[in-house]
Amino acid sequence: MKIILQDNRRFILRLNRGEEVFTEIKNFAEKASITAGYFSGIGACGETELGSFNFQTKKYENQIFTGDLEILSLTGNVSLLNGQVALHAHTCLAKPDFSTIGGHVQRMVVSVTCEIFFIKLEGKMERKLDPEMNINLLD
Amino acid sequence: MKIILQDNRRFILRLNRGEEVFTEIKNFAEKASITAGYFSGIGACGETELGSFNFQTKKYENQIFTGDLEILSLTGNVSLLNGQVALHAHTCLAKPDFSTIGGHVQRMVVSVTCEIFFIKLEGKMERKLDPEMNINLLD
Amino acid sequence: MKIILQDNRRFILRLNRGEEVFTEIKNFAEKASITAGYFSGIGACGETELGSFNFQTKKYENQIFTGDLEILSLTGNVSLLNGQVALHAHTCLAKPDFSTIGGHVQRMVVSVTCEIFFIKLEGKMERKLDPEMNINLLD
Repeated sequence: MKIILQDNRRFILRLNRGEEVFTEIKNFAEKASITAGYFSGIGACGETELGSFNFQTKKYENQIFTGDLEILSLTGNVSLLNGQVALHAHTCLAKPDFSTIGGHVQRMVVSVTCEIFFIKLEGKMERKLDPEMNINLLD
Repeated sequence: MKIILQDNRRFILRLNRGEEVFTEIKNFAEKASITAGYFSGIGACGETELGSFNFQTKKYENQIFTGDLEILSLTGNVSLLNGQVALHAHTCLAKPDFSTIGGHVQRMVVSVTCEIFFIKLEGKMERKLDPEMNINLLD
Repeated sequence: MKIILQDNRRFILRLNRGEEVFTEIKNFAEKASITAGYFSGIGACGETELGSFNFQTKKYENQIFTGDLEILSLTGNVSLLNGQVALHAHTCLAKPDFSTIGGHVQRMVVSVTCEIFFIKLEGKMERKLDPEMNINLLD
């Protein structure tokens, strides 16, 4: 991962082939002491695990996708969960035939490049387990 | 709806289960005297009405979708139409099998949560009916 | 293309029917001396050429789509390539049946309107050919 540009609290990050997106953004946020942020990115990925929240079971059902996938959108935020940096992001991906899939990002490995626009927000956002939904909601 | 964080003119909003997205963002914009803004969100929704603009008839053709839908992207802006806050937003949604649908948002009911990054812009944007297209365009 | 609003280094741009998105944003960036930027838009388009990067051949495979297409998301950035303004953007589009397609944007002609939120970033971003990937990466 490389910080391509910093303009005050706005950043452009470039993730490289083989890097896992959440690991890299988390590392970046930890090093930069970011406790709240928003990001939006495009690029291409290979192995990617997507989740879909099942409202009945209150659990994510996950599936791994591979192949040449264009990242049409990767939208997410940075907050804290139990004092640790936590990411929440959703993505929409295109297959080589231009059909699309998407979901909650569990894991995403960059294949060519991934260009992320990141805004560090002043303040702190914290997540807390919502017992009814069994999910960590912004609090 | 809860304002999770405010950093100058940037906000993180959390919408709750059962809330309709346009109603909530409109209320927020009215209370905060917002006459121009941009927003981008992720989350999950249930009943959602999408529109597709038919270039021949110059009308939206709408369809209601239900089920567990992940909001992959919700992108929109706030402007004024006849002095009133008006929203324009498009969304891409994923079904439990990770296939996606999308369109112009007519109505969207949050099912789990919806996390919105909102930027209040200085100034005013106004929409006006374009007679040729029969649609309210930014003016 | 019309600049609907300017708030310091944030802009709302309206692209008009028949305008090609990359041509217009490039013109705007050149006139405003923008050497780094981020943008996010929605709208509707007709003829649109999408690309999918083939990791084996290291080339884009392109396809042209027509019809009434809603722009669910258009996410991109502005940088310099050999001293000239260069755009990189991905899009997700909905067909009239609400099914979606998407890819790397090669060309996109606006059909009704296209509303773009643009942030000019301080500094300069440059692309350079990566010989291994045969693609111009942010450097």
